[in-house]
Order: sequence, then C-alpha cells, then structure tokens
Amino acid sequence: MMTVAFIGLGNMGAPMAANLIKAGYQLRINDINPNAAASLVSKGAVWCDSAAQAIEGVDAILTMLPNGEIVKRLFLDEQGLIACATSLPLLIDCSTISPDEARLVGAAAKDANLEMIDAPVSGGVRGAVDGSLSFMVGGSTTAFERAKPLLSAMGRSIFHVGDQGAGQAAKICNNMMAGILMAGTAEVLALGVRNGLAPEILSEIMNHSSGGNFMVNRWNPWPGVDQSTPASHAYAGGFQVSLLLKDLGLALQSGLSTRSSTPLGAITCSLFQLHSLSNVENGYLDMSSIQRLYFPDTTTTSTSSR
Amino acid sequence: MMTVAFIGLGNMGAPMAANLIKAGYQLRINDINPNAAASLVSKGAVWCDSAAQAIEGVDAILTMLPNGEIVKRLFLDEQGLIACATSLPLLIDCSTISPDEARLVGAAAKDANLEMIDAPVSGGVRGAVDGSLSFMVGGSTTAFERAKPLLSAMGRSIFHVGDQGAGQAAKICNNMMAGILMAGTAEVLALGVRNGLAPEILSEIMNHSSGGNFMVNRWNPWPGVDQSTPASHAYAGGFQVSLLLKDLGLALQSGLSTRSSTPLGAITCSLFQLHSLSNVENGYLDMSSIQRLYFPDTTTTSTSSR
Amino acid sequence: MMTVAFIGLGNMGAPMAANLIKAGYQLRINDINPNAAASLVSKGAVWCDSAAQAIEGVDAILTMLPNGEIVKRLFLDEQGLIACATSLPLLIDCSTISPDEARLVGAAAKDANLEMIDAPVSGGVRGAVDGSLSFMVGGSTTAFERAKPLLSAMGRSIFHVGDQGAGQAAKICNNMMAGILMAGTAEVLALGVRNGLAPEILSEIMNHSSGGNFMVNRWNPWPGVDQSTPASHAYAGGFQVSLLLKDLGLALQSGLSTRSSTPLGAITCSLFQLHSLSNVENGYLDMSSIQRLYFPDTTTTSTSSR
Amino acid sequence: MMTVAFIGLGNMGAPMAANLIKAGYQLRINDINPNAAASLVSKGAVWCDSAAQAIEGVDAILTMLPNGEIVKRLFLDEQGLIACATSLPLLIDCSTISPDEARLVGAAAKDANLEMIDAPVSGGVRGAVDGSLSFMVGGSTTAFERAKPLLSAMGRSIFHVGDQGAGQAAKICNNMMAGILMAGTAEVLALGVRNGLAPEILSEIMNHSSGGNFMVNRWNPWPGVDQSTPASHAYAGGFQVSLLLKDLGLALQSGLSTRSSTPLGAITCSLFQLHSLSNVENGYLDMSSIQRLYFPDTTTTSTSSR
Repeated sequence: MMTVAFIGLGNMGAPMAANLIKAGYQLRINDINPNAAASLVSKGAVWCDSAAQAIEGVDAILTMLPNGEIVKRLFLDEQGLIACATSLPLLIDCSTISPDEARLVGAAAKDANLEMIDAPVSGGVRGAVDGSLSFMVGGSTTAFERAKPLLSAMGRSIFHVGDQGAGQAAKICNNMMAGILMAGTAEVLALGVRNGLAPEILSEIMNHSSGGNFMVNRWNPWPGVDQSTPASHAYAGGFQVSLLLKDLGLALQSGLSTRSSTPLGAITCSLFQLHSLSNVENGYLDMSSIQRLYFPDTTTTSTSSR
Repeated sequence: MMTVAFIGLGNMGAPMAANLIKAGYQLRINDINPNAAASLVSKGAVWCDSAAQAIEGVDAILTMLPNGEIVKRLFLDEQGLIACATSLPLLIDCSTISPDEARLVGAAAKDANLEMIDAPVSGGVRGAVDGSLSFMVGGSTTAFERAKPLLSAMGRSIFHVGDQGAGQAAKICNNMMAGILMAGTAEVLALGVRNGLAPEILSEIMNHSSGGNFMVNRWNPWPGVDQSTPASHAYAGGFQVSLLLKDLGLALQSGLSTRSSTPLGAITCSLFQLHSLSNVENGYLDMSSIQRLYFPDTTTTSTSSR
Repeated sequence: MMTVAFIGLGNMGAPMAANLIKAGYQLRINDINPNAAASLVSKGAVWCDSAAQAIEGVDAILTMLPNGEIVKRLFLDEQGLIACATSLPLLIDCSTISPDEARLVGAAAKDANLEMIDAPVSGGVRGAVDGSLSFMVGGSTTAFERAKPLLSAMGRSIFHVGDQGAGQAAKICNNMMAGILMAGTAEVLALGVRNGLAPEILSEIMNHSSGGNFMVNRWNPWPGVDQSTPASHAYAGGFQVSLLLKDLGLALQSGLSTRSSTPLGAITCSLFQLHSLSNVENGYLDMSSIQRLYFPDTTTTSTSSR
Repeated sequence: MMTVAFIGLGNMGAPMAANLIKAGYQLRINDINPNAAASLVSKGAVWCDSAAQAIEGVDAILTMLPNGEIVKRLFLDEQGLIACATSLPLLIDCSTISPDEARLVGAAAKDANLEMIDAPVSGGVRGAVDGSLSFMVGGSTTAFERAKPLLSAMGRSIFHVGDQGAGQAAKICNNMMAGILMAGTAEVLALGVRNGLAPEILSEIMNHSSGGNFMVNRWNPWPGVDQSTPASHAYAGGFQVSLLLKDLGLALQSGLSTRSSTPLGAITCSLFQLHSLSNVENGYLDMSSIQRLYFPDTTTTSTSSR
C-alpha cells in the first residue's frame, strides 16, 4: 500500500488523516503541535519529528495548513519539502490559499520535476470526519488522476477544475458568491419584514422565483424559518464568520492581483467585518448571523403568525 | 358573467385583458392611447372614452399602469376611480408601484368601503400573452378570494402574501434579490475567468455548491455557457436593464422609508446605472448584460476550450 | 413695512421668524401646533388660525416645513396657498425637500403668476437663532433679488445657484458630499489607528495633503483630536445622524429620478443606517459618531501618547 | 562627504539620485536596467554591477523600487542587502509597499543591528525632479534624525509619523482618502449637473461649506471648472489611475490584515477598476478622469453658461 506523509493535523487535517488510515494508507505524520498526533498514532500512523523526516520515501505528501505564508515556507524554504522530496512524491496541498500562491508553489514543484495539485476542500469539520468533503482540484490531468484514489478516501465529490491554482480560484469564487448570497438574503429579508412581510412567506416566494438561491433555500438566516438551520439555533454551528472573512479576503486579494472589479464582494466583506467588529463573539457564529447586523432584534420578532 | 373595467392597455395590459375576454368576462376598457384598444374591441370589449365611464356598473376594476404617480392620480383624484365607483367593485391594481403608495391608495379605498388588492405580476410580456403570469397579492383574505378567479384567467401562480402593500413589497424584494444575484454572478464569473477558470466549469461548481442561485443556474450571464439564455444571443430578450432599474429604485425608496439598510441593493442599482450610462442601448438589453461591465470583452472569449 | 406670512414654527422656523420681527417685518404666523406661537406673538406677530388666513394680503409667504409631502399639500391643495394667494405674494420655501418636488410646486406657482424660490438653509438651530444661516436659492433672478432683503434678515450667506429646484439640489449635493467625507474620514482614521498611527498625526498629514477635507480638518470624528468637535464631547450637539439620513435619502431619490449612479452616497447612507439601527440613540448623536461603527472602542483609546 | 548607495533608478529614483549628487553626496548606483544610469554617471555617480557591490562601505542605502515583493527579495535574500551590509549603513526605503512588508523588512534589519526607516513619498515625478517631495517617515527618532539631511536634499516636507511601517501606513491612508474624495466629488458633481446645477457653482458652494475637500477645491474633476487641473486638459498629467489603483490595493490589503472595515475605500477601488477596464487607456489618465465613468459625455457639456 502507498505511504503518505500528512502535515498539518488541525481540526480538518486530523480527521482527514484518520480517513486515509481507515482506507489502508500508511501514514507518516507531522505537525508543529505534537499533541495533535496521539490519536492518529494509536491508529497506526508514524509520528515524525520534522516535516523533512515525514516525507522520506513517501509516495505522496498531503498538507493542510492555515495560510499561504506557512505553505510557501514549508514548500519553498531551502530545506523545504520541494528541496527534500527525493522520492518523486505527488504533492497535494489541501490548504486554502490564494491562487497566486498556489501557482507560485506549483511552479517551483514543476522545476523540481514534482507533480503537484492544489485541492482545497469544502464541507467543514463534519465533512472531514465523515469523509464527505468536496475537493476542487487544480493541476494537470495526470496529477489529478494520480490523486483521485487518495482524495476519494476523504471526500465524496472530486472536481478537476483546471490548471495549477484553479482549485483555489474555484473555491474562493464560490465562497465569495456564497458570502454575497448570504448578505443579500439577509438584507432582503430585513427589508421585507419591515414592509410587513412574514419572512417565511418571502423566503418561499423567492425560492420559487428569480430570487432563489442556496441561502434562502437551504441556509435561511432568519430564525424560525427553517428549524434545521443555524439561524434557528442562535447561529451556532455552520460556517464561522471568521472563516468566511478569510476566504473573502483571499477573493478580494485575487481581484486586486487580476485587476478585477469586485464591488459586491468587497461590500460583503466590509459588512461581515462590521458585524465582527461590533461584538467579538460574532466571529465564532455561523455566517447567517449577518442577519443581526441588518435587523438587530430578530430574536424578538415572531415569525410564526400572520 | 362578471363585467370588468380594464384600464391601462400597454404591452402588459392588452394581452392580460385579452385573456380575460377569452375566459368569458365582459370588458369595459380605457387607455390614454385610444389606438391601444382596436384589437380588444374586435374581440368584444367595450371602449369607453374615460376611466370614469369605463367603471360604470362593473363588478371589478383592473388597472395596469406605468408608475405610482399615475396610479395615485387615477384612484385618488376628486373625480378619480374611488370617488366614482358606485357599484362597489373589487379594485385590483396590477401595476408595480411602491408599497407605501399601495397602502395609501388601499386606505382610501377602505374609507370608501371598497375592497382592494395590490397584485403586481412577474413573467413579462410572454407571461401576459400566454396567461402564465405570477401574481403576488396583498390585501384581505376575502378580497383575495374574490379576485382569485379573475387572476387565474391571466396567470398560473397566485400567492397571497399579506395585507395591502404586501404584494408590492414581495415583488420588489424578490427583484432586488434577483438584481443582486445577477450582478454578483457576473462579478464572480469575471473573477474566475481572470484566474484561468472556464466559465462553464465555475458555473457548474457553484450550481452544486453554496454559490448556487437562479442566475448562475437558469439565466447565466456568460455568453455560451447556456445556449438558451439571453447571454448567448447578444443579451436580446429577457428582462430589460431599464425595467430592473425601475424595480431597484422602488426597493431602495422602500428601504429609505422603512429605515432599512440596503448596501448590496444600492450598489447593484449603481452598477446597473453605470452600465446603462456607458451606452444608451444597454438599457434595452437583458439584465445579464451587466456581465459586460465587469468583463468588456466577453464576446471575444472562447468558453469552450480548456 | 412689508407684511410676511410665516408658516411652520418649529425648532428652525420659530427663531427665523423672530429674526424677521427684529428686522422690522410685520408677521402673520401659523403652525399646526398653536403653542409654537406664544413667544412670537409676545414680540408682535399676529397669530392666524389657518394658513389661508395667515396669507391674506401679505407681500411674501415663508414656509419652513418638515418634508415634501407637507409642502406639496400646503401649496397645491384645492384650498392651498397657491389657490388662495390673491395679493401676488413672493413665495419662499425654506424647507428641505427634493428638487423634483420643488420644481413641481414652483411650476404650479408660475401657472398662477406667482414668483417662487426654493431657499433651503444650512447652519442648524444655532444659525437660525443668531441669524447666521446660509441660503441656497433656486429661482429667477428677479425673484431672488426680491427675496434677498428678507433672507438677509435671517442669514449671512445667500447664494443664487440656479433655477427653481436648484437650491434644493445644491443643498442635497453638498450634504451628500459631507456624508461621504465624514464616513470616509472615520474609515481612514480607523485604518490608520489599527496600523499604529496616532489619529492626530494622521489627521494633520491629511490636512496638509491630498486627503484634506472639511471633516478631518474642522469636524474631526476621533475623540480628542480636536477638543472643539462633538467627537470630543461624546458626540453631543452638531448635526444629528437622523437629519443627515433625511438629506442622504433626498439625494439618493434625486439620483434615482435623474438616472445618476451614486454608489458612494448610497453606501454612506447604508452605513449611517446601520449605525442608527445598532442603537436607537445613535440617531440623536452628531454624525461624526459614525466613527464608532468603524471602531467601537474609540472611547478607550488614548490618542495623546506615541 | 557621505557615500550613499542608490538602488532603483526609474522615473522617480533617477531624479531623486540626481538631487543627492547636486547636494554633494557621493553616489554608488545600481538598477536592473543599466541604461538608467548613463545620465547619473555623467554627473559623477559610480555605476555598480550589482546591488551588493553598490553598498560596499556606504554610509546609507536608499531604495526606490516598484513593489513589496522586490523590496523583500532585495533586502531579505540570503545574499541580500541586510546580509551584505557590513558598514552599518542607514537603510532608507522610499518605495511604496504595504505596512506589513515594511515592518517585516524593518524587523530583519533590526536583528542585524541596522537602523532602517520607511520613507514613501508624495509629489510625483515633478516633485522628484525639483526636489519638492514630501516624505512620510516611519522608524525610530534616531534613525529619523540621521536620515533627515539626506531626505531634505530631495524633498521639502519631512514628517516623522511613527514607528517602522508608519510611513507606509500614513501614505496609503492618505491616498485612500484622496481616492474617496475624488470619486465622491465626481459623483456629486454629476448628480448636481443632472439636477441643472452648473458644476462651477456647485464646486464653489461645496468649497465654502461642509462638502469642501482637496479635490473639489484644488483638483476639480469637471472639465473647465478650473483651467489649471488635468480635467481641463483631457485628463493628461497629474496622478495616473493605475498608480492610484496600486495604492488603493495596498490600503485594502492592509484593511484585510488589520481586520478593518473599508467599504468606501473598497467601492472606490472597484469604481476606478471599472473605469480602467472600460478603456485600457484610462489607466494612464489622471485619476480625476473617473468623472467620465459617472458622466460619459462631460466633454460635450458646456460649463460656462447658465
């Protein structure tokens, strides 16, 4: 069976690594925090004291790291992964970083005759645990095919979206759209309620008309419209405001570097930032809590009577 | 059979009136432009030289007018419809006007012991012709039930969304959302393409993820992604930019009068306005032509190759 | 000496009327609230039970009313001022209303052979009391010259800015600019402080550079930068957020009716609206309190040390 | 006399270096483009084939480079300036880069016991040629005092604004404000003109009121209002749209990294980007050409008659 180095064992990385073990891969693991490894070691993973040691002789290297600076350092430093990878492993970076950074690292890998893909995920911690993540993959077709079995052990949907960097681009584009949808839906619901509409009726109308979108339909931000959404549980769970802000930031930086105009994405980011600034705890709430910025007293509004 | 007065025989009103005749209603019609009536008269409608004359003895009055000023004048003037309606007809205003104006006229009707609903439509000229309009109705339940047979002769979906004004509120809320979705989708597609993504692949990803919305899925603004959309036919047909701007204007005015904050709606309106200003003909294009504001050279971009 | 009818004796109107009395004019006064008149009657004004009665035989009619609906009703109703003005008085409306409304009323006056100007003011209650208001006048040159002595009794700067409606246009344009300057200055100061800059130093640099503007220089929104501004006194006094919101609303409506694109004005309005929504008392604070939206904890930030 | 290494001899750097020679400094110069040096060599500068060679034994190193990536590489590479600077020179970086990057490089300098300041400039090529630049300096007081004589040879105003990075922060804050002022002024002038106001009259009113700002007063974007501005000369000269976009990009990135909300800065950037996208030549025009985005036909509007 293949040997895989897995570096970065946080909230997402650890359960992803566990799914690889479950699928039969032999894992060599490393993290800046050694405590992250205990559970995985008990399942058979081999702890390594450094990333360089972890990648010795492996068939593939999988990384899941917090940001682009760390990714660049780990891969590009003089004693980094690319310099030390002597076994021609496939490089799979699942971190969410900017397309520019992904292309930069990818180009260095190519210069060293290494195949690499960027494969950011969506699906959150729950998706990482139960192996239902979606992967958006950028890279060559051969690299994509080589990675597919590994990714399939951790996720359900695996899209090949283009060349190196395209995976990151697809993720930040989708998430910028998601942010716009959520803020827009919250804005429209507040306007409707102030005009005397019941939020559940307005939601239903939009769902069946040209205002239909993922948020009004599946992630409704008004408390009580859909009992299954975070909005109906004090905005707990879901996708945290702070994580959306990270992705919006990457999208806007990509807009700057590609000379794109992103007015709606930028305003959406500014609104979530204001929401976050107004109360430090808002950063930990689900992103649908932006409803409170538009309508501070949603909690006291009955949504059940007409 | 019931006698209905129909006032306002423009692009929408004329085919709606024709459908009422087809359903067996006796029509008394009036318009500021007498030429609008010829075809309807040949089908059995009775032309009247004034609105006051048209409403004599009718069971219901249906109006389809360009804006709120005209609606207010027609209903509220000293010799207006409300003052002259002696046969206790049901009042049905299908014009798109502001919720405030609808409530104002509705209150005057109520003072005169007349039942009234606001019933703005969606579906465009095509929907008016083939009787497939959607009606969003505001008013009492009894007035709604009384209107239902009439509306059913002209449309397929009839929603009762709340009290007087709620129909208008629902329409402008939905259309503001639609405008945000369209501008947001165009913005994200341009960002993706500048990052090397094929627009059809990015569209597909969003459709299956949290960025999914009516526009990317059913009204895609990038030429060639969906051969059935206006974007693939030089943005002809569809819903004109100038009409969207009218609805966005009503939504924003409603935001001002209800002290709602509408940053995304307002920026969307400003963007469509810039689009319209940059070339006078843009006002007549489908609203998906906003794609050109974000990506002026879409026409020269191949979308078929990767 | 000339006889003047003065209608609308609120916070602004009453002291303006008092200054006319002081300058020797004979005043006939009316207000929907009779209590507003006591102090003026003691100074020699004649109370009239209706507006129609107040304007009998006068040389000029001066109105200072809360909004355009009230202005339109007072002037245009069948028994309104224009219909009842038999002595050919000069009409001076000092209310802040939309340019469209001013032009509508002005056209009706013209049809009745009455000269009219729109003459909205700036300077606030203090300016009304001490006679230092600024007037922005729209109307013909002859009407302007006829009004000048009256306006000079109430204000210091009297600008003739164009035809009927131009006074309103100038006021809302200036105030929209003022709103953008205030929000922009607050936004930049917050960004600078988060980058380690002292707000007073950044303010000084902008004052001497291309970022210079009325707000950073004369109405600085950061507490402590200028001891004389509302910011240094818990945002008390100054120009209330609710009043700025009224003027921004008029500006945006004018943008809609003239097909102008107003993205910065619209976002500024949305931001002040969010500020106002987050705490009902914010509406009564000076507009520089928008600083708190961008930097909620300004009160605890020392600005004196480096 | 002191010996100074000057690296980066572009449109700004070359004339700045010439002013140092004129003031008596001995210059060792380097640029990636050797042709940039000819004129300076004829004035006495010593050409060096590498940056490392240029800094041998110097008292100060002055850099004027296009962006932060280049600055970081030049200073931080293993064979970079900081590693090679054995004579304890003062480091002066006049490039415009992000505050974060300036702090990063500054920290590395400090670790090597080198004093460093960030000293971005304003004043453009003209200011560089005639020695009238403004410097915004971040760094310790001792480093600032040490740099002052050098900076005085190239500029007129030298501000010490805070610690390392503060110079960059001050520049991007001021320039973001300038961008907001320009777009806001253009927006308001277009609104006023569409309401029948003459642009020169509206400009004058704002100058004397709460709408006053550097742009309406000194850099008026409407052609003909002020014969001395770029607007009156087809938007030639001045501060190019592309350079403003660079600075706005740095400001927005700084907003992202400091968790600031920057809605007005972001919309301003998006508007200038749309302006730039609509015609590739707009990037070379003065930033006041944003007026054309709001009012495409300014060139045909007479501004002299009322």
